[in-house]
Amino acid sequence: METPNLDSLFYPKSVAVVGASNVPGKIGNAIMRSITLYYEGKVYPVNVKGEEIEVNGKKFKAYRSIQEIPDEIDVAVIAVPAKFVPDTIDECGKKGVKAAVVISAGFKEAGRADLEEELVRRARKWGIRLVGPNCLGVTNLENGFDCNFNPPERQARPPFGKVAFMSQSGAFGAAILDWAAGHRIGMSKFISLGNMADLDESDFMAYLGNDPKTGVITAYLEGVKDGRKFFNTTREVTLKKPVVILKSGRTEAGAKAAASHTGSLAGSYRIYQAAFEQAGVLEAKSMRQLFNYAKALAMERPAKGDRVAIVTNGGGAGVMMSDGLLERGMKLAELSEETNERFRKDIEAGKLPEHMSYRNPIDVIGDAPSSRYEIAMRYALEDPNVDLLVVIALFQSPALDEGIVEAMERMKAYGKPIVFVAPGGDYPHKMARNIEQRGIPVYETVEDGVDAVYALVKYGEWLKENGKI
Amino acid sequence: METPNLDSLFYPKSVAVVGASNVPGKIGNAIMRSITLYYEGKVYPVNVKGEEIEVNGKKFKAYRSIQEIPDEIDVAVIAVPAKFVPDTIDECGKKGVKAAVVISAGFKEAGRADLEEELVRRARKWGIRLVGPNCLGVTNLENGFDCNFNPPERQARPPFGKVAFMSQSGAFGAAILDWAAGHRIGMSKFISLGNMADLDESDFMAYLGNDPKTGVITAYLEGVKDGRKFFNTTREVTLKKPVVILKSGRTEAGAKAAASHTGSLAGSYRIYQAAFEQAGVLEAKSMRQLFNYAKALAMERPAKGDRVAIVTNGGGAGVMMSDGLLERGMKLAELSEETNERFRKDIEAGKLPEHMSYRNPIDVIGDAPSSRYEIAMRYALEDPNVDLLVVIALFQSPALDEGIVEAMERMKAYGKPIVFVAPGGDYPHKMARNIEQRGIPVYETVEDGVDAVYALVKYGEWLKENGKI
Repeated sequence: METPNLDSLFYPKSVAVVGASNVPGKIGNAIMRSITLYYEGKVYPVNVKGEEIEVNGKKFKAYRSIQEIPDEIDVAVIAVPAKFVPDTIDECGKKGVKAAVVISAGFKEAGRADLEEELVRRARKWGIRLVGPNCLGVTNLENGFDCNFNPPERQARPPFGKVAFMSQSGAFGAAILDWAAGHRIGMSKFISLGNMADLDESDFMAYLGNDPKTGVITAYLEGVKDGRKFFNTTREVTLKKPVVILKSGRTEAGAKAAASHTGSLAGSYRIYQAAFEQAGVLEAKSMRQLFNYAKALAMERPAKGDRVAIVTNGGGAGVMMSDGLLERGMKLAELSEETNERFRKDIEAGKLPEHMSYRNPIDVIGDAPSSRYEIAMRYALEDPNVDLLVVIALFQSPALDEGIVEAMERMKAYGKPIVFVAPGGDYPHKMARNIEQRGIPVYETVEDGVDAVYALVKYGEWLKENGKI
Repeated sequence: METPNLDSLFYPKSVAVVGASNVPGKIGNAIMRSITLYYEGKVYPVNVKGEEIEVNGKKFKAYRSIQEIPDEIDVAVIAVPAKFVPDTIDECGKKGVKAAVVISAGFKEAGRADLEEELVRRARKWGIRLVGPNCLGVTNLENGFDCNFNPPERQARPPFGKVAFMSQSGAFGAAILDWAAGHRIGMSKFISLGNMADLDESDFMAYLGNDPKTGVITAYLEGVKDGRKFFNTTREVTLKKPVVILKSGRTEAGAKAAASHTGSLAGSYRIYQAAFEQAGVLEAKSMRQLFNYAKALAMERPAKGDRVAIVTNGGGAGVMMSDGLLERGMKLAELSEETNERFRKDIEAGKLPEHMSYRNPIDVIGDAPSSRYEIAMRYALEDPNVDLLVVIALFQSPALDEGIVEAMERMKAYGKPIVFVAPGGDYPHKMARNIEQRGIPVYETVEDGVDAVYALVKYGEWLKENGKI
């Protein structure tokens, strides 16, 4: 596996924006807005008129060409008409630019494969690595380096966190980012892959595999550029950190649509499925599932087995969760005789209510305070037959006090993965945020929780098979 | 099909709350709070001390027994210890009460089948219909008659609308209500079924089938009380309005959990599946799917066929939608030669962009303003090969203006069902609310949109098979 060093792409000290503009609505203006909002490196606008650029209340002296800039330049973000891009690359080369993000469209996707080949040829000559063309560029949530031309009032940026995301579709990628921001999913880096004339999904996969700031790698892909390279790369990366892929073009109609969209040969879906499985990739079937998996893997350790215990204050939710887990191939843990005995004694002693069920799912009943949850959770986590704990809290019951938040923090000490499910509206959402701050992932529906358990169990299996846990 | 007249249960002129209390945290206090918040009928608290009840800033004179109340009583809401409930029913009978909602637990679910039988015997004697026992009662969102003891700060109530919901699990039902409120799903009536000692899911199904305020009936069920009655009732009701059921206890572990929860014999899931299919019931597999189906069916007319056209400003989302539709057994419409010709001419005339794809999915590309959407939507809706239109809008693109809201209203005139998908965060949510006010259901992910299309197509097929459309 060859790992390109893309540090200067994601952590540039200085950036040139070629095609920078003062006209609101122009892409060269939007990029200037995004790039100067949080990023603290130096930004040099370049445009034919050399006109000063004013964005975000700051003024930037502009240059007529990148060579006129009196400073070294790590990255050039290029948003000029396609026909001018190859020459711009030559100028970048003379200037010693290390990487170029080509936002401009009008290449292979518009029937100009020749222009794209020319672009690559020039970049190779100078040793410049390329992102795109025809993309939204890269966003590093850590240092605010953000080439994405969608304005923040239309597309929110997620908080900095452990999930990296790359997308073969810029527009859909942006929608997913916006959605992830609303769901407070912390992200490390976003890459809009574009036409992948040079750097492709495997290159970024390899880089992110070594990126200490990335804990989970996610991707939206319609097809891969080089199957062998992709397989070899991901197979190595998945031994270090989880990889979750949303692959579209799974059906005949989807594959046709993909061909007309990115020109991807979606290929036989079965071949992809087999490759994913053999490379330890978790395949998500929907946007929500992609992030259900990613959030669990970013926050919790993988499970050492598939035996799940459920603690709930609502019997119905326990039934739903049991169905969901079994339908996805997992097991309900059979609690040990010792654990049953502990429950029986507590019930006899009046510490636990007479009518609760302590067979898994453990139903602490509707009037359970957090102290009762805590007893049940401890017994489940201390049981050697339990690999993972699901806690369902129906916060609509006023009996359930906020002590559950601190209790969850104490449960972390057991070292077994925990998935928390809190269906409902505003109040459960507030509790969810507090519990997530303690490092336990919270989901708003039973089915989302099932996804989370699945990801932790499946990735645990993969690591086990490969002797990593 | 026997349809009980439950109008006095849902629209009582006067209500007695037996077991009313002034002590915050007591169920008899919480019920008084809920029932007096919006409901404008008369509320008479009953408790052994005859103490005045003060809730929501209002004072209510209390009575020592229901017979002392100097007024007729339509409904008694009963929250006294189980052992006193049969005698309370006798008092209700003497008073001429028509229906009783028994919140109290401690009957069959607690091993007291005898007490439950006694309860039913007494009610039958007086001709009183019973909800429960062991339930959260009923909530009529139309007139605010609400027996649910979960306080509003813990469990929001959804706005008044067309979806009725009944739940065999009170706690889970409450969580679903809270969730639905957060997603602004309008509801007509909520019924917590409890032990179903008298009125069961089929009785409510029959009543809701004739309820002019209910457009769609939804239910969470672990098992049905009387299979034959249920089948005959739903088969008739589904010819009048859609029925969507979330059935749990589908797996062995789920069925076991259900048996310990509600005592339901979940029965063979295959038998349920066959019955649902033959009765025209749409089966949902998750909470989200239940309401994805319900919202579509509440807002849009059923589709006359399964040929779907997609208009999108993001190719990737179009690919995802194509996969989702095909995987669920629907078709992408093959646009007529006339429609293709219309697109071709507009492209030649420069009215539509050169690189857009007008094969279904119709990709109006990332820089599409609402006017371009409108051309594409009209051509799709005017095509005789199209039964249903899916519109995907990635609002992250600043090119897409708010004119899309009015455009959608104009598209309603074609009389074909439309499903709108707007993935992302705050801005798409705002647009979604505006578009839903125009009567078109909006979904936040592609997969939710697929659910919506599925429901409209499947219910349309059922009506067609039965000669109803």
